[in-house]
Amino acid sequence: MKNFADNLLDKIDKKENPSDVGLDPRLNKIPKSIIEEMVGKFGKSFEAVGASFFEFNKRIIDAIKDIVPAVKPQMAFYEQYGFHGVKAFVDTAEYAKKKGLIVIEDAKRNDIGSTAQAYSDGHIGMVDFFDRKENSLNVDCITVNPYLGSDGVLPFIESVKNYGKGIFVLVKTSNPSSGEFQDVTTSEGVKNFVLVANNVKKWCEETVGKSGYGSVGAVVGATYPEQATELRKIMDKSIFLVPGYGAQGGGAKDVVPCFNKDGHGAIVNSSRGIIFAYEKGWKPEQFAEAAREAAMKMKEDICGALKQANRCSW
Amino acid sequence: MKNFADNLLDKIDKKENPSDVGLDPRLNKIPKSIIEEMVGKFGKSFEAVGASFFEFNKRIIDAIKDIVPAVKPQMAFYEQYGFHGVKAFVDTAEYAKKKGLIVIEDAKRNDIGSTAQAYSDGHIGMVDFFDRKENSLNVDCITVNPYLGSDGVLPFIESVKNYGKGIFVLVKTSNPSSGEFQDVTTSEGVKNFVLVANNVKKWCEETVGKSGYGSVGAVVGATYPEQATELRKIMDKSIFLVPGYGAQGGGAKDVVPCFNKDGHGAIVNSSRGIIFAYEKGWKPEQFAEAAREAAMKMKEDICGALKQANRCSW
Repeated sequence: MKNFADNLLDKIDKKENPSDVGLDPRLNKIPKSIIEEMVGKFGKSFEAVGASFFEFNKRIIDAIKDIVPAVKPQMAFYEQYGFHGVKAFVDTAEYAKKKGLIVIEDAKRNDIGSTAQAYSDGHIGMVDFFDRKENSLNVDCITVNPYLGSDGVLPFIESVKNYGKGIFVLVKTSNPSSGEFQDVTTSEGVKNFVLVANNVKKWCEETVGKSGYGSVGAVVGATYPEQATELRKIMDKSIFLVPGYGAQGGGAKDVVPCFNKDGHGAIVNSSRGIIFAYEKGWKPEQFAEAAREAAMKMKEDICGALKQANRCSW
Repeated sequence: MKNFADNLLDKIDKKENPSDVGLDPRLNKIPKSIIEEMVGKFGKSFEAVGASFFEFNKRIIDAIKDIVPAVKPQMAFYEQYGFHGVKAFVDTAEYAKKKGLIVIEDAKRNDIGSTAQAYSDGHIGMVDFFDRKENSLNVDCITVNPYLGSDGVLPFIESVKNYGKGIFVLVKTSNPSSGEFQDVTTSEGVKNFVLVANNVKKWCEETVGKSGYGSVGAVVGATYPEQATELRKIMDKSIFLVPGYGAQGGGAKDVVPCFNKDGHGAIVNSSRGIIFAYEKGWKPEQFAEAAREAAMKMKEDICGALKQANRCSW
């Protein structure tokens, strides 16, 4: 069984690209030709929405599969359309894996005890299935919210160990209000997000692979480079999943502190900036071509900044 | 449009019962007769799992619908079986609403900006649907994790206001490790969960109905009665959703501090203790009958403790 961190870093090195594409489809941004085809097949239904999402994603995946090591579908955009949306998510994840991509499920799941176990089993483990166990959603890794404490995280780490999967724990998120609870200073003089980071470091130790990195990673926003510098030192063996680049305002220079000096240790996400790149001067039907160009530009942008900072591993 | 808090309290008063039943199905605890029927129809498939869950839930709902005001399906147990599981969730929610019950979705969703908006739209609002908006999961209320700050909560509050829905924000959860991040004392001498509570109070003010209660509630575990006493004073207009009673170790006396002196202000959940009550001396096929008896016992237990504390509103 391959270690998740080793697998991800291997794919990053082979493609010389520490970035991924967020697959966050929106109905009103999908080209008319796809919508018309699916409404023709399924009527104006949630099924048509799901089928449109999957078709859109397939074409994006085909256009970027040789450039990026991973895709990050955000579950919210799928499950908002109920089970037809979730089916589109499952189909997308399966398609991406067939094309050799790592699937990072952004779902920020969290609960306690047997309920956290159910999330863990369903997304990255195996579920009870009559007289045996069976894979269910079977993504490569999932984002997890730590507010409930270790009870809420350990069931996910069990699946990380048992099935060669990964998790990314929310530590310092990219949004403007992330500081409200995450940046509060404790009476012992540390910030809350540092407390979480200390736990991630501890959890990660037990999952370290041949690469020297572990499969318990952290979400650290590109919009807070100072905090990233601090967190990089604490969680030295964790891979950072870095949102906030592009549409949210983070630039290539801002993501550099998320990488270790060996040039490893982070994967930077862009969603809207890639999948809806067609909005900047292309025709809607050219969305896949536009996405490919934007993905290549992101790769060059980030690798350029890493090279300049002498943190590029190839 | 009725206010969610008013609606919930009205149903609680009519049934003279501030408790709900958690619908958390597990495949290995569903009676053989149901499993055999569904496997006969759908083979050993995820579809059969979903159909078994829905059949089990329907019989539970029929057995308890005149006793409790609400049910709380926990999404983890459904979505672990992919879209067939989510379909069982949707069918269950619809069935419960038809039977006059409030549906409290326990999903602890959280994200930022447009992604939080997608969760809010899908679960308690309306989603983009070709040339118009459409209801999707359409539950009455949902639990929300606050770790991302107000960016992550405000999109849910918009739906609360626009569609007469409710949310319960995780404040102090019932699990043993909830203190790891929630109980940390800040440099200003307050606990983290109090910071969250102060925000819930503020958010709740804008949603207060005729009952004097608002539709932004809080999750406060029955296992921490001291903290509940403190939180009850801070969030005086919020309804508490109280997990931890029964299987998790909280007793009827422990939930009393979650209620205001007017006898209102909380709804206590029990899941395993009700839906799998048959395990205590009944035959598996008698699960619905056993659940009914357990639900009545929970009602008497909690109302007894409230009456003794002079906090019963009927």
